[in-house]
Amino acid sequence: MGKPRGGETAQRKELDRKTVAAIRSAAERVHGRIAKGQKPEMSFPVRTLQNVHYDKAKGYFEIGRAKKNRTLTVSTVRTFAQTLKMMALSKELVETNDFATKRDAYYQSKNWHEAAFSDQVESDTVMDDIEALFSVDGVSREQLRFIPDEHGGAVAGQLVVFDPDYATGTVHRIDCTQFGSGAYSIPSLVEHLTFETNAKFVLAIETGGMFQRLQSHRFWEKANCILVSMAGVPTRATRRFIRKLSDDAKLPVYAFVDCDPYGISNIYRTLKVGSGNAAHVSQFFCVPKTTYLGVTPQDIVDYKLPTHPLKDVDVKRAKDALKNDPFFRTYPVWARAITQLLDMGVRAEQQALAKWGLNYVIDEYLPAKLAKVGQFLP
Amino acid sequence: MGKPRGGETAQRKELDRKTVAAIRSAAERVHGRIAKGQKPEMSFPVRTLQNVHYDKAKGYFEIGRAKKNRTLTVSTVRTFAQTLKMMALSKELVETNDFATKRDAYYQSKNWHEAAFSDQVESDTVMDDIEALFSVDGVSREQLRFIPDEHGGAVAGQLVVFDPDYATGTVHRIDCTQFGSGAYSIPSLVEHLTFETNAKFVLAIETGGMFQRLQSHRFWEKANCILVSMAGVPTRATRRFIRKLSDDAKLPVYAFVDCDPYGISNIYRTLKVGSGNAAHVSQFFCVPKTTYLGVTPQDIVDYKLPTHPLKDVDVKRAKDALKNDPFFRTYPVWARAITQLLDMGVRAEQQALAKWGLNYVIDEYLPAKLAKVGQFLP
Repeated sequence: MGKPRGGETAQRKELDRKTVAAIRSAAERVHGRIAKGQKPEMSFPVRTLQNVHYDKAKGYFEIGRAKKNRTLTVSTVRTFAQTLKMMALSKELVETNDFATKRDAYYQSKNWHEAAFSDQVESDTVMDDIEALFSVDGVSREQLRFIPDEHGGAVAGQLVVFDPDYATGTVHRIDCTQFGSGAYSIPSLVEHLTFETNAKFVLAIETGGMFQRLQSHRFWEKANCILVSMAGVPTRATRRFIRKLSDDAKLPVYAFVDCDPYGISNIYRTLKVGSGNAAHVSQFFCVPKTTYLGVTPQDIVDYKLPTHPLKDVDVKRAKDALKNDPFFRTYPVWARAITQLLDMGVRAEQQALAKWGLNYVIDEYLPAKLAKVGQFLP
Repeated sequence: MGKPRGGETAQRKELDRKTVAAIRSAAERVHGRIAKGQKPEMSFPVRTLQNVHYDKAKGYFEIGRAKKNRTLTVSTVRTFAQTLKMMALSKELVETNDFATKRDAYYQSKNWHEAAFSDQVESDTVMDDIEALFSVDGVSREQLRFIPDEHGGAVAGQLVVFDPDYATGTVHRIDCTQFGSGAYSIPSLVEHLTFETNAKFVLAIETGGMFQRLQSHRFWEKANCILVSMAGVPTRATRRFIRKLSDDAKLPVYAFVDCDPYGISNIYRTLKVGSGNAAHVSQFFCVPKTTYLGVTPQDIVDYKLPTHPLKDVDVKRAKDALKNDPFFRTYPVWARAITQLLDMGVRAEQQALAKWGLNYVIDEYLPAKLAKVGQFLP
């Protein structure tokens, strides 16, 4: 714990003011139309793959201009009311410095009488709409104080996290070199965190087992880096944490995942540029400064790795990526790598390096890779 | 970081000596038979539900006396060799102070020539056999240095964890009140950890969302407790951590889970007494001092909670528990609670309490429950 650090709490309160202003302005548009005797309406960005594009320079999946309108009619009255109630909940959460998960919000609605949601799919859709609506103003769901149900991954290495208490201004100083064999667990909401680090890069790791190996052997000390365990497709909190860290400390991020279509297209692609059905949030969650350390299809050859045959679902996923994914279609070098994997017909896990010794990954593989970061897949 | 604390490293080395001695003794039995010109054989506890019993006094599922023998013949030669190689790997891991996940061990075998495993199911089975074999000597898989692929849950609250570095003896001091909105992430291997706490109990929480609420609002301070996020069925590392904490600090553990057959029979039952197909490890992993705080079937009535209908799989799971589960069959009060749930035909999530306000759980529900710990379900 320490003294308040200049500016963080002020910055946070400024963000909160901006969020409340955005909610108020949306509500005033509705109110204004009603006052003029017009039917109120709200306009939301369309959230489908067809309304997504990828621009290398921006570095993330962007939502397009297609909009859908929700006009107040007999048939939309309930959803319309729910949308306004949900916005009011968000405003209250910001003003009381609290937060709600999707489930919390659903159950809260049980006290909204006729506007109660009848199932969580309904309330999730309204929340997604609101998130898309305010993303246009650069306001993320987390700023609206709607937080994910899962919290984040684990972090270890050359990083100090500052976590200011909103109410008291007291700042917790969390030194990620001091967790022994354990780690720092990322909270659901990371907007208020700030960082201090001399690390050279962030290593985002797919499996808990590999993370534990690198952490227990203090690889972060040797390589002067920060380790993050994603445990599969990273949660929103984990992605946002890595993104903030990458932005604030100007650090590159290297992804270390299994060499299979899931590791490449679901985990890596989602981390770097976002996902198709949530493109409206990519601006907040993707980490454009990520490159792909490995395991690459060529590594399977170069390191004579033990493999498994590609399953049908792997082949389908890889072919989809080649054909339909705006990210992979932008980079011929990725198309070649995925084609190579399909031609070989096999996949390899990152832990396959253990064939050459449990710590081969620390003593040989990672140092060899890190000597050539310029050659990582984009 | 601090100075070495008396005894911990010594205790850890003593455990390692015991482990190596057990491996050596098993190997010598095999060697002895060969030297006498006899066929070598090894004898493993049978790992099925039929070979499990539950004794209230012991507090966990215990494996029975049924054994299967593995004699060296033409058809078993490969498995026999693999079993011995795996034991040798374990011995090497203990001696070099390293560890391997199931996957690591599988890939290591790729260098065992003809004894290489052809898939991970094979190597997992051999590892489970070895684990069962040495569990008879009171040696856990973690002492054999085989660690789970997933690491553990998140911890916050009135607890200091000491994590000694095996090589240097330096002890990391991890104060779980100091992580702001974040938390301590439990490592895969927890045998070497020790604790310091004045907390009155451990609260083991099913969902990340509820954990985050209690952590962000510093419920642990108010209630003088330790919060652990299980995120569904707790991993082995999480269960072992809670068990060690409960034993070493003599703390009761209260489970706070969803009121559905999954929360009751999979999460709670597994945490408290272990699981059927892994009864040989229950002695290390179950937490007999756990009681069930809620959400109870009666809470659904008393707190007028929003519910969902029980699904077919829920009904099946509940009926199985009543009919076949030695734990629930031991406690009539549990049988009544499960029957009540079946009769109501509904389930409720812990976050359903949000109907009464997001922080109703903190202000009303938990304090009311904690005033009557003696009435918790066993």
